[in-house]
Amino acid sequence: MSRKIAVIGMGHVGSTAAHYIVANGFADDLVLIDPNTGKVEADALDFKDAMPNLPFHTNITVNDYSALKDADVIISALGNIKLQDNPNDDRFAELPFTSTQVKDVAAKIKASGFDGIIVAITNPVDVITSIYQAVTGLPKNHVIGTGTLLDSARMKRAVADKLHIDSRSVAGYNLGEHGNSQFTAWSTVRVLGQPISKIADERDLDLAELDQEARRGGFTVFHGKKYTSYGVATAAVRLANIVLNDALTELPVSNYREEYGVYLSYPAVVGRDGIVEQVQLDLTDEELKKLQISADYIKTKFAESTAK
Amino acid sequence: MSRKIAVIGMGHVGSTAAHYIVANGFADDLVLIDPNTGKVEADALDFKDAMPNLPFHTNITVNDYSALKDADVIISALGNIKLQDNPNDDRFAELPFTSTQVKDVAAKIKASGFDGIIVAITNPVDVITSIYQAVTGLPKNHVIGTGTLLDSARMKRAVADKLHIDSRSVAGYNLGEHGNSQFTAWSTVRVLGQPISKIADERDLDLAELDQEARRGGFTVFHGKKYTSYGVATAAVRLANIVLNDALTELPVSNYREEYGVYLSYPAVVGRDGIVEQVQLDLTDEELKKLQISADYIKTKFAESTAK
Amino acid sequence: MSRKIAVIGMGHVGSTAAHYIVANGFADDLVLIDPNTGKVEADALDFKDAMPNLPFHTNITVNDYSALKDADVIISALGNIKLQDNPNDDRFAELPFTSTQVKDVAAKIKASGFDGIIVAITNPVDVITSIYQAVTGLPKNHVIGTGTLLDSARMKRAVADKLHIDSRSVAGYNLGEHGNSQFTAWSTVRVLGQPISKIADERDLDLAELDQEARRGGFTVFHGKKYTSYGVATAAVRLANIVLNDALTELPVSNYREEYGVYLSYPAVVGRDGIVEQVQLDLTDEELKKLQISADYIKTKFAESTAK
Amino acid sequence: MSRKIAVIGMGHVGSTAAHYIVANGFADDLVLIDPNTGKVEADALDFKDAMPNLPFHTNITVNDYSALKDADVIISALGNIKLQDNPNDDRFAELPFTSTQVKDVAAKIKASGFDGIIVAITNPVDVITSIYQAVTGLPKNHVIGTGTLLDSARMKRAVADKLHIDSRSVAGYNLGEHGNSQFTAWSTVRVLGQPISKIADERDLDLAELDQEARRGGFTVFHGKKYTSYGVATAAVRLANIVLNDALTELPVSNYREEYGVYLSYPAVVGRDGIVEQVQLDLTDEELKKLQISADYIKTKFAESTAK
Repeated sequence: MSRKIAVIGMGHVGSTAAHYIVANGFADDLVLIDPNTGKVEADALDFKDAMPNLPFHTNITVNDYSALKDADVIISALGNIKLQDNPNDDRFAELPFTSTQVKDVAAKIKASGFDGIIVAITNPVDVITSIYQAVTGLPKNHVIGTGTLLDSARMKRAVADKLHIDSRSVAGYNLGEHGNSQFTAWSTVRVLGQPISKIADERDLDLAELDQEARRGGFTVFHGKKYTSYGVATAAVRLANIVLNDALTELPVSNYREEYGVYLSYPAVVGRDGIVEQVQLDLTDEELKKLQISADYIKTKFAESTAK
Repeated sequence: MSRKIAVIGMGHVGSTAAHYIVANGFADDLVLIDPNTGKVEADALDFKDAMPNLPFHTNITVNDYSALKDADVIISALGNIKLQDNPNDDRFAELPFTSTQVKDVAAKIKASGFDGIIVAITNPVDVITSIYQAVTGLPKNHVIGTGTLLDSARMKRAVADKLHIDSRSVAGYNLGEHGNSQFTAWSTVRVLGQPISKIADERDLDLAELDQEARRGGFTVFHGKKYTSYGVATAAVRLANIVLNDALTELPVSNYREEYGVYLSYPAVVGRDGIVEQVQLDLTDEELKKLQISADYIKTKFAESTAK
Repeated sequence: MSRKIAVIGMGHVGSTAAHYIVANGFADDLVLIDPNTGKVEADALDFKDAMPNLPFHTNITVNDYSALKDADVIISALGNIKLQDNPNDDRFAELPFTSTQVKDVAAKIKASGFDGIIVAITNPVDVITSIYQAVTGLPKNHVIGTGTLLDSARMKRAVADKLHIDSRSVAGYNLGEHGNSQFTAWSTVRVLGQPISKIADERDLDLAELDQEARRGGFTVFHGKKYTSYGVATAAVRLANIVLNDALTELPVSNYREEYGVYLSYPAVVGRDGIVEQVQLDLTDEELKKLQISADYIKTKFAESTAK
Repeated sequence: MSRKIAVIGMGHVGSTAAHYIVANGFADDLVLIDPNTGKVEADALDFKDAMPNLPFHTNITVNDYSALKDADVIISALGNIKLQDNPNDDRFAELPFTSTQVKDVAAKIKASGFDGIIVAITNPVDVITSIYQAVTGLPKNHVIGTGTLLDSARMKRAVADKLHIDSRSVAGYNLGEHGNSQFTAWSTVRVLGQPISKIADERDLDLAELDQEARRGGFTVFHGKKYTSYGVATAAVRLANIVLNDALTELPVSNYREEYGVYLSYPAVVGRDGIVEQVQLDLTDEELKKLQISADYIKTKFAESTAK
């Protein structure tokens, strides 16, 4: 009875995800957790002040880890976005901070008895997803990172803008790290009934530029407002909904790929049992090389994070 | 063809309202305006990054006043929330700042040829709504302030919490200034099929305390997170939707009441023609006195703002 | 994990309720049951054909009573609308047919191990709700009839039409039997900030005529299209949603009132535990008399149905 | 200001489309037209009886052709489904009936001054769309048939069922006539990151059987309940929404293809200006042959219909 979602970390991203959930009635019970008690209580009250003008009702619980026991999905939005304000725009700058936080939170999640699905947004998301899985001991397919679901959306937006079409009419994936080593797997991208390579030829699209725009899209937003929120929160909540209603939707998300030995973004079928099936793409040699580099990078960073 | 909404002022409140609109497909065309170009462009891009994962598409235009010409509703969310961080928690502390901004913006709205409905959130909202009407020259019933639609929601939330019921099952109004001189008109509040006075007697509710909680609710949120956003943005978007679909819903909003000679919050029927009908309540003598005090306060402040 | 709703009876009302649920993603799992296998399978397939064009996914199970075991809400929409096509427009004409069906279905519900909430639409709804409770042995507050939630909506529509306002801005209740002995409790109806009696005086509203319109509204629809569907299905699904998200909303629904010894419509607070609190209205003597007559009528009919 | 949709023909399909619109607030103004006055008025009243329990308000106008003047989209759902109950399950059996009706209705649409977009569902839809265009004199790209948007959905449903994935995770098109000469263009179908031919080989999918299931899907539903409604109404309303918000979504719909000289289903980009861009697929020779046969069939039938 009821859809129960928890959001841990009520900064820009977590509170935007929570608002999206409350405004659309996506959860019956919503648990909000943040070490900044003042902030999370203020958000909870603000949501309650919205409810008399909303068509949906949501039961909100604040800062109670025991409430995670029967939650269906936990969205981890912990982070310290300020740390991304570095010359290299590298999401790994957040790792020392977030990995410490996440180990603590993951232990508390485990202690609560939670046995649902974790959707991690926290950056660097591929490593953080690994940490969540390692510490909680949940099955690997029950811990998922939003990964390049967001970057793929950015790629779709960039392509759609050029072609004057709906971004939902662009199919394809960004793969690898949700970070600078990611790439658009152009061999998977289709638009207007054709592989994009053909459309690119016909219409003089510069795919390298579009790839760059997808990868850099987040930083354009970040430099404009000092954080990103709507794109990633929407991706995370969509993922949570897909889990809740067992939609079995195919999406590029961060999932554990045996052949790479790490969590990285690659399309998978997602449902109530988390990663239900892993897709196998026919990538080009160049794409395979890029993916290996991205995987190696994540692996090294994960090793560093656990060495500490 | 199409619902066109503009949001002017993309701080916490404006961007939350815009997100709510985008996430729910409440507008076909959305115009976002803010003097901080970096911020508004980042928000627009962030919304576009959300769209591939959303069921709705929204066309977004940034910082183009000429796009207001055929807008249906303008939501004014200009403000400088930091100015409310004063010892008295007085929304009038924002007036010198916002009244200057609003006069400028209102002149640009007028110049655009806009002839729709303005929904003002900017504080102090009752005076700001007056300024919008005066400068744009729009009919008085086409300029509306969210006013105590939010405070009434806070009162409902406070009452509902005490009685363990849905806040949407509390009927009644906060009246007057969206500020410290407002009050809950308890004679209008009904709950569980009874006037609240009767339920209060039976269940030992302290109405004065609840009144205080409604009035102070915003500041609790404000002190917790340094701004308020979800409650007020939800109220504003609900109001915009009611205008767009000509719902003729009765709501407490800031509207011009001839007998008081000012904009203040009092229930009215709202539709595509703005304030379509003004309600006439049977208030108690004490409530009438409070309302007069609130009206006088707004009048004085408005005079000060125009004197400058 | 997941919201699971079952709809039993896939005639006009049941299939409309199911469509409303599917089109809005109100359930994760939906069980559809109907003795007409061809019809229910066709509807299920038709829903699946809609899903690629919908933002929501719903898992559909057909004609499997064992799937009710862990359902949260069962909506009973069994019926034989043709039987209402009688000279007296009396919903009790359906009783011999529906009571037989319902006893059978209720036994199967019981056998499934179901322990959620039943929302009954089947007419004559007050008696049918009693039968469901008696046969399943579920707690009285876990079996609810849509009752006059629909008739109250019709009253609101009739009043709103006269006053040119939103029907959601009319507060108040129709009470008693969801049938010809029901009545609008005008003492509970408020509109435009006033008791309706005052507005009626000012604006020459004929309350007796409006009362008649609320009571007869269903038959106007019925005679026009030989069934009614949208109003009642919307009421039932709203009720189911309120249960699922534990909204604690106050609504006039058919619930067991000790003082009358029957199920009849009277406002109550509804949540995940069904009828969570019963409201106590201050009715006029005339209204109390009408309610007693209505209760007596239901009681007699229930006795007849069990005598068979 | 406002989204205005008209539904002409309030049988099973039209009334389901109207309900979907009302229940989701997709239109501010809704015009319902049907020669059966009793039916359309009953539906309108039934919708109004739903509104007090809905979060959205819709203004409904009945049987007023002059209200079409400023409508944005007209959904034509005229039809006589009984005529499809023929041994060949041929939608052309409806042509003599619907073509007469449509000519009359199209003339009235023209007389109203309507200059929006027509979305035709009426069967045989490719010919009917031609007739609407010819009689109204609207630009060819402003008259669209739902065509194989529905059949493509059925193909997706059939493929998804076999592979245990979300039907929204199947990409590809059914092309040609929305009728027996249509076919799935398997060269366009992709699933699990691969062309379906590859997946079919790996998993022993019988594409001919799936093709048949897509084509016959409607008749399975039809034979089960004597009409189809949810799939096609959902497709039509999705199309209307895409027009209203100018989403520029790529969809297989019935649009006029110069090279075939007829309306037939082929992917196109749809927005506020109707068919905004026509897609060019790389079909196989066999698919091109099938499409030519389908086009020829439609052309012959259209010639017959105008000869009368």
